[in-house]
Amino acid sequence: MARALILGGGMIGSTMAMDLAEDPSFDVTVADVRDEVLAALARDHGVKVLRADLSDVAELVALAEGFDVVLGALSSRMGLRTLRAMIAAGTPYVDVSFMADDPLSLREEALAAGVPFVVDCGVSPGLGSMLAGHATTVLDPCEELQILVGGVPLQRHWPYEYKAGFDPADVIEEYVRPARLREDGKTVTVPALSGVERVDFEGLGTLEAFYTDGLRTLLHTLDVPTMREKTMRYPGHAALMEVLRDSGYFSETPIDLGGQRVRPLDLTRALLFPRWSYGEGEVDLTVLRVEASGRRDGRLERLRWDMIDRLDPKTGLRSMSRTTAFPATLVARLVAQGRITEPGIVPPEILGQRPDVLDEVLAGLRVRGIDVRFERTHG
Amino acid sequence: MARALILGGGMIGSTMAMDLAEDPSFDVTVADVRDEVLAALARDHGVKVLRADLSDVAELVALAEGFDVVLGALSSRMGLRTLRAMIAAGTPYVDVSFMADDPLSLREEALAAGVPFVVDCGVSPGLGSMLAGHATTVLDPCEELQILVGGVPLQRHWPYEYKAGFDPADVIEEYVRPARLREDGKTVTVPALSGVERVDFEGLGTLEAFYTDGLRTLLHTLDVPTMREKTMRYPGHAALMEVLRDSGYFSETPIDLGGQRVRPLDLTRALLFPRWSYGEGEVDLTVLRVEASGRRDGRLERLRWDMIDRLDPKTGLRSMSRTTAFPATLVARLVAQGRITEPGIVPPEILGQRPDVLDEVLAGLRVRGIDVRFERTHG
Repeated sequence: MARALILGGGMIGSTMAMDLAEDPSFDVTVADVRDEVLAALARDHGVKVLRADLSDVAELVALAEGFDVVLGALSSRMGLRTLRAMIAAGTPYVDVSFMADDPLSLREEALAAGVPFVVDCGVSPGLGSMLAGHATTVLDPCEELQILVGGVPLQRHWPYEYKAGFDPADVIEEYVRPARLREDGKTVTVPALSGVERVDFEGLGTLEAFYTDGLRTLLHTLDVPTMREKTMRYPGHAALMEVLRDSGYFSETPIDLGGQRVRPLDLTRALLFPRWSYGEGEVDLTVLRVEASGRRDGRLERLRWDMIDRLDPKTGLRSMSRTTAFPATLVARLVAQGRITEPGIVPPEILGQRPDVLDEVLAGLRVRGIDVRFERTHG
Repeated sequence: MARALILGGGMIGSTMAMDLAEDPSFDVTVADVRDEVLAALARDHGVKVLRADLSDVAELVALAEGFDVVLGALSSRMGLRTLRAMIAAGTPYVDVSFMADDPLSLREEALAAGVPFVVDCGVSPGLGSMLAGHATTVLDPCEELQILVGGVPLQRHWPYEYKAGFDPADVIEEYVRPARLREDGKTVTVPALSGVERVDFEGLGTLEAFYTDGLRTLLHTLDVPTMREKTMRYPGHAALMEVLRDSGYFSETPIDLGGQRVRPLDLTRALLFPRWSYGEGEVDLTVLRVEASGRRDGRLERLRWDMIDRLDPKTGLRSMSRTTAFPATLVARLVAQGRITEPGIVPPEILGQRPDVLDEVLAGLRVRGIDVRFERTHG
């Protein structure tokens, strides 16, 4: 029986707990600082719980020792610090936090620890990265990669037609941070929210896609000359966000209002975030499209994977929680089973280059109601 | 020689001063609290100047006595208070301040003072109201009236494509205050910024028009069953303003940001108003369209007046200043000449019902480079 520790009992962490608790090969513990969260998890899913201050690195290290695998479901701000603690503890780790920092900066220490530390293992980065990595093993050469991902509410309410499946502050951060992409072998930086294009999905309609800084480790791990990552929303969202951003409403630099120092982002937080929160049972959608083109046996070939997932009415679990948590729990199983042992920082695109790992993840997602449709075209 | 006092030496007041100073029949004095403004006016236009705190009602009353006519060019917030002071002083008055308050509330006192107090005498309300009033004397009955007015910069800069010819706070106020209009004889209230429609102008292109609360005294003075007033901007502006307004960014109710009480409008003021200010020499446009329909000798007839004015490169005067100040100086001439003597609150639509007054105003505008094109169609 594998002993798994889940860091954080929030939306993603509790979805991980629910998933692993149903697996008799796992003994699951959830650590969080909030008593009420822990009580609910123990009651609803029969997992062990542990009250701990996860912002305390020493406490984190002590906590992780003795577990077979740790799953990270903490906020992006705690991402790098937690990764560092897991490396210090020497415990295999699977993390979904979309940290702003570069996890590859800890490459050496991670390698020395001798066990795998799988980072960015949610939906995208995560599942999208695995599919991108897989494409590079099918096409030779793989000339172009594009990852489109987005979370949107099923019901569209004026004016933003958006709700956040995770911390809205992280969403705004994505709209502000310049996006890195690769064009003809060169890494270039463009403003977030730029490059808006319309994208159609059978059964869903038209979304818009715009650049965000989501390639991350792929810029270092994959040798593909052209790579782009875009975030998707309902059409019109990017233009509104650009207006607010460029008007200064997302700025973190305090401005003086008659003697008071005010950060515009704090006001935006107060005004917009309540409107961007999902209500109980409100249906969300997660949409992922990975496209790759290149040559196979000398012929031009295009690969495309499409996923459209929605809130699961049976469990009430939101799609963003499911599509983020399940890639991590499926990979954690492979780690616990000793099927992923590669030491060091292991980004998902590297895992996706192993057909057995990708097959296992896609099969596991299918069992959980998440279908990824594949299509191949020539010429 | 008529002694004229101009209250306020800002953009509009100095334009009034410049206009009247060129007329040998006037002896012009400008009152303002700002020394540098007064010094510039005395130097550039040879007018008399008077340093005074115009927010002090007693000082205002004392100031006005002894003048033949007073012209008001103060901010909307000081509108009603200043009108009351002029009534107390018993001096004929011509005002352009677009005050939120109803000047007709001072009807009785004004009547008792025995001289005319012309209110709302800018471009619209003002010139637009005169044309509307005129239409009611041509058509019998006049069934429908529509006044469209807007100030926009010649150069359109993303995202607002707008600059304010007057205090931006007054612009936002227009976007927030519900708009009253008359439909089939009933006064109804609709949200400001609603009822967006596209309007084409020969030689200018397409603008959008939306409801604002600009009918004002016309709701009481004209017996026309359907009357609408709309503000014009470049297309898309209203939608952005609606997003900001309905997201709470125009709110004057303080919200709590971690212990600090902040009024969202104060932040908006700090972020947007610098972008909404005209630079030196930057060309502005003022666009006015008044439409009336009804019967004349039993036949259906439609009247339309169009004005498109722009910054005057000879004087450097912005169009919004010219089109606001000149109707007032032209009416002030008629008051000084004893041709407008009607006692009480006199809204411009009542003046427009006198063909001699309207002809004089339109001729005076033409001399000043402002052309109002008239068109009549049947059926």
